[in-house]
Amino acid sequence: MSGRLVLFRDVDDLISALPPGRVLTDPDVTASYARDRTFLQAGAVRAVVLAESRDDVVTTMKWATANGVPVVPRGAGTGLAGGAVAGDGSIVLSLARMTRIVELSPADEIAVVQPGVITADLDRAARAHGLMYAPDPSSYEISTIGGNLATNAGGLRCVKYGVTRDSALGLEVVLADGQVVNTGRRTMKGVTGYDLTGLFVGSEGTLGIITEATVRLRRAPAKPPITVAAEFTSLRDAASAVAAIIAAGCQPSMLELIDRNTLVAIDDWRHIGLEPTTQGMLLAQSDAADGEAAADRMAALCEDHGATFAARSTTPEEADELIAVRRMAYQAKERLGECLTEDVCVPRSKLPEMIAEIEAVGQRHGLMICTVAHAGDGNLHPVFIFERGLPEPPPHVWAAADEIFRAALRLGGTLTGEHGVGLLKKRWLELESGPVVASLQTGIKRVFDPHNILNPGKAI
Amino acid sequence: MSGRLVLFRDVDDLISALPPGRVLTDPDVTASYARDRTFLQAGAVRAVVLAESRDDVVTTMKWATANGVPVVPRGAGTGLAGGAVAGDGSIVLSLARMTRIVELSPADEIAVVQPGVITADLDRAARAHGLMYAPDPSSYEISTIGGNLATNAGGLRCVKYGVTRDSALGLEVVLADGQVVNTGRRTMKGVTGYDLTGLFVGSEGTLGIITEATVRLRRAPAKPPITVAAEFTSLRDAASAVAAIIAAGCQPSMLELIDRNTLVAIDDWRHIGLEPTTQGMLLAQSDAADGEAAADRMAALCEDHGATFAARSTTPEEADELIAVRRMAYQAKERLGECLTEDVCVPRSKLPEMIAEIEAVGQRHGLMICTVAHAGDGNLHPVFIFERGLPEPPPHVWAAADEIFRAALRLGGTLTGEHGVGLLKKRWLELESGPVVASLQTGIKRVFDPHNILNPGKAI
Repeated sequence: MSGRLVLFRDVDDLISALPPGRVLTDPDVTASYARDRTFLQAGAVRAVVLAESRDDVVTTMKWATANGVPVVPRGAGTGLAGGAVAGDGSIVLSLARMTRIVELSPADEIAVVQPGVITADLDRAARAHGLMYAPDPSSYEISTIGGNLATNAGGLRCVKYGVTRDSALGLEVVLADGQVVNTGRRTMKGVTGYDLTGLFVGSEGTLGIITEATVRLRRAPAKPPITVAAEFTSLRDAASAVAAIIAAGCQPSMLELIDRNTLVAIDDWRHIGLEPTTQGMLLAQSDAADGEAAADRMAALCEDHGATFAARSTTPEEADELIAVRRMAYQAKERLGECLTEDVCVPRSKLPEMIAEIEAVGQRHGLMICTVAHAGDGNLHPVFIFERGLPEPPPHVWAAADEIFRAALRLGGTLTGEHGVGLLKKRWLELESGPVVASLQTGIKRVFDPHNILNPGKAI
Repeated sequence: MSGRLVLFRDVDDLISALPPGRVLTDPDVTASYARDRTFLQAGAVRAVVLAESRDDVVTTMKWATANGVPVVPRGAGTGLAGGAVAGDGSIVLSLARMTRIVELSPADEIAVVQPGVITADLDRAARAHGLMYAPDPSSYEISTIGGNLATNAGGLRCVKYGVTRDSALGLEVVLADGQVVNTGRRTMKGVTGYDLTGLFVGSEGTLGIITEATVRLRRAPAKPPITVAAEFTSLRDAASAVAAIIAAGCQPSMLELIDRNTLVAIDDWRHIGLEPTTQGMLLAQSDAADGEAAADRMAALCEDHGATFAARSTTPEEADELIAVRRMAYQAKERLGECLTEDVCVPRSKLPEMIAEIEAVGQRHGLMICTVAHAGDGNLHPVFIFERGLPEPPPHVWAAADEIFRAALRLGGTLTGEHGVGLLKKRWLELESGPVVASLQTGIKRVFDPHNILNPGKAI
């Protein structure tokens, strides 16, 4: 502690400038705020600020600009790309205590929220008015709206309702120097000036700190959704059923694919009665007015494409239980070892090819890869399992990841569908974007953050 | 002509650099390419380039950068804010000849299009595959995708399907200096780097020239839509019916309001049998699977809110005829005199108040204002009619417009829901955005266009 105090004496000014109890400096405590859900190691951070208001954020940013100290903003720390991993000497700025739903207007179908609101809490609050907040990353029971906005998070329902950016109407943002701007609007439409709201969303905390967001709510479906579960003896058959379901216009509100490795991990943990021949499972959901008919059509299409079993839920409880299997996937995999979670996205028609690539890469490198996919969006999460205790993935895991990224790009896809670039994907970035886009991105960063103190080294 | 040739001799280099037939210089001809659909007068332009390929655009931009000549990009010239009005000495760069639908992929539900494709043509091409291109500005039979992207155009269906930005996945853009960049993706999701696609969309040609776009298609509804027409003796009753329709979760695919002045203009032209007591008409449409039920519910809600008449279409032809009334509105108003078309958007719940403001402003200034509204989005188009032949709106029209803008902002709304800022709304811009946002916008502009040659003086 005393060495630390000597090193970071400047933090005293910040502590005095903020209300009491806002700053943590004990390294044993701050370390847990400096990481996300990746294996990446953080540096020794100067301090953690637990902001409770916009003013706290303004004070912190003014201090950081005056002292040239990097600031790493943070929601719940559920990120999977290293976006919230803090480097040596930086300040972690946690927005997790700003948990107020400031306004919920059923007439305008919007909510105004602070960044620390848990995503599923907003959805539940909206449901009380017959509305919903659509974006639902797998982490939505523990992740925050602020983190979802920072990464432009996707989720299961976005096959029908779009990603977080599609629900973001306006933002209050504290800039690097502590100035506050309001972007966007509380109307459904608006075209005044460049789309700064869309620019901040997905910028991974590198352009400003979101302190309030106006988000779009949607009418909740009138009836509980119907879920279809289908089992396949080949993952490529499952992928072709996905294409058929989309082409038939079934408009699923979820369309998820789970591979055998993942199913085994879930079965070992929660005993779902996995059949020995099942290589993949599709979970499809319809929340439409004619949901039963849509579900029957999806089940029939699964059978047409080789499903050994396909049935739809007959009660809301059963529908939820089936989806719960999918939501267990990430935790089940974490039981197997350290995880490198990837996030490629390909044009929907290339899903079978991408699955074949992943299988081939796994075999080539003797690697266990567990894959789940938001199949309706072509968004795959191959998770590479490696030995527990290793500080980072061994070279053959990186080599496998590299091959998968290149395959996704070759198929017309992208490195990251919804997790973000963070630190993990930076070295592949230019493969996708090219040097001219990179220089435009750097130029934008300089406009917003000329001294490079906002989450430096991330995202671009 | 000879004076012109002396003035603009540098254009000879551009003419030689492009394939034959690409450049127009006769001032009688070029003048018609230098205006849009506003009353705004253009300057004497240097030349018009009729680009037929990306290479033509690259050549033009390289020449423009080398010579410091402003370039005003142009689609069909249907803009309503002056975005395509060209100043003295500029080059007009028309993309209207780049009309190729490069690819239409039913499996991926996307199309790759050149900027000169007429919006309704793309929609028709998609319908042949059971798909649709959703954005449908009132001009969609004559406006281009490129122009729609440049202004982030809205339309009638966007109450259900979102605006142009929501359908834009990726772009090929020629920058000010002739460099070509590709932004975005052909996948449904992607979060690699800042959202440059969203930034170019709605930037009104000030950041780059879009030469190709990858757009999202959607499944076309399985059945033809059902239209409800309802007549009201008070416009505010009609506005409260709008709120009720949204709150009841009817999810209309269109929800349009037309005031009496507009109905009279249409009736004078096309004899629609307007009742003397009708002060407003609502046109609602449902394209859902249970469209008849939704339409009946919407008609009943109109009656509950004071409609003197409400009925739904029983044939597809009838449904189309009712919507055709709405699509005639703009041309009907142009028969009355010169038009200043405005585009305020307010939170949906403020629609009745905004309508009352518009009525009061019209009375106060003794002005004829014809209003139509994309009511489901809170987006109103009050059109101020003024004396034909006047070069621009007289002071009392500007005063009225000013009051309407300020009222919209006071109600939590925006200056422009879908037409853009162009030249017409620039003097009110800072009322909405404030100086810090303005300086960020200027900073972004400088990153993309350091010599300020791309549509200078517009949008920001």
